[in-house]
Amino acid sequence: MTTKKTEKKDAVAHLAELIQGIKVAMMTTVEADGSIRSRPMWTQNTDFDGELWFFTHDSAPKVDEVQGDHHVNLSYADSSRDRYVSVSGVARLVRDKEKIHKLWDPTLKAWFPKGVDDPDIGLLCVKVNKAEYWDTPNKRMVQLVGFVKSVLTGETYRPGGHEKLDLEDTQSPMH
Amino acid sequence: MTTKKTEKKDAVAHLAELIQGIKVAMMTTVEADGSIRSRPMWTQNTDFDGELWFFTHDSAPKVDEVQGDHHVNLSYADSSRDRYVSVSGVARLVRDKEKIHKLWDPTLKAWFPKGVDDPDIGLLCVKVNKAEYWDTPNKRMVQLVGFVKSVLTGETYRPGGHEKLDLEDTQSPMH
Repeated sequence: MTTKKTEKKDAVAHLAELIQGIKVAMMTTVEADGSIRSRPMWTQNTDFDGELWFFTHDSAPKVDEVQGDHHVNLSYADSSRDRYVSVSGVARLVRDKEKIHKLWDPTLKAWFPKGVDDPDIGLLCVKVNKAEYWDTPNKRMVQLVGFVKSVLTGETYRPGGHEKLDLEDTQSPMH
Repeated sequence: MTTKKTEKKDAVAHLAELIQGIKVAMMTTVEADGSIRSRPMWTQNTDFDGELWFFTHDSAPKVDEVQGDHHVNLSYADSSRDRYVSVSGVARLVRDKEKIHKLWDPTLKAWFPKGVDDPDIGLLCVKVNKAEYWDTPNKRMVQLVGFVKSVLTGETYRPGGHEKLDLEDTQSPMH
């Protein structure tokens, strides 16, 4: 149990490092007809503890998409550092005014001209359950230990299988 | 009809311009359990005519994912130019040796050490049916007219609805 907790903690810290400095993620959702869409999203600065936060308009189509299918993916790409990170998770809409005020940043006024009290403001909270990145020297996919369980099924992390490996070539990257 | 063809041609040319210089796309697929994954992929240089080509190992997990659900998304992100493009389409595996030879580039040896005749080489061809990008000055989502067809349903493009608009704020970007 301690090992699991440690692994999870390490994975959280590691993911935080990986996406550090990549402000804009592409968030992918699945539409009702099965097509897949992505759009740029600003990751809000928080002490990352396994959840990522994004401001959204409540009325935005992606909120509907998230309601229909909680699964999302966030891709963080930084070509200048040759860094590519895939973050899989489940999203939920949060309308907690206190949290909105806590995460509010004045630059957000570009999209919410009414300011922090705009009634259409919401937050998308993505609980990460899997993360992968590409190790530059070897160009191999690396899976972050600890982020391996489906939150939806409620199963706990069990070491074993390919998820346990943190530096395995489970997939040829870039191809 | 001519208008439709012109729109499609314009959209193709426009999308080619938008992704120009963004060599690595994040390709998103949906897994059997509904979770969404992405991975970096090199876009092969071709005269873009509505299809994008990528080299792949036939045995890669994403090939299975594509067989199960043809839908894919390609996100092209270039933070230095503040350019973000979402490309939705359907993928198919192509094992045509002639095409493989035509698109082969010696730098691919990093991933296919056996070279162009590696029996595990395949191509993923993505037929684009929707593309969106974010217009920097206004930070508004722009939908490319012409790429509005579901290849799967076989429906033809009908002007009308939000797809017809090429500069409409159908969605608040970044949020």
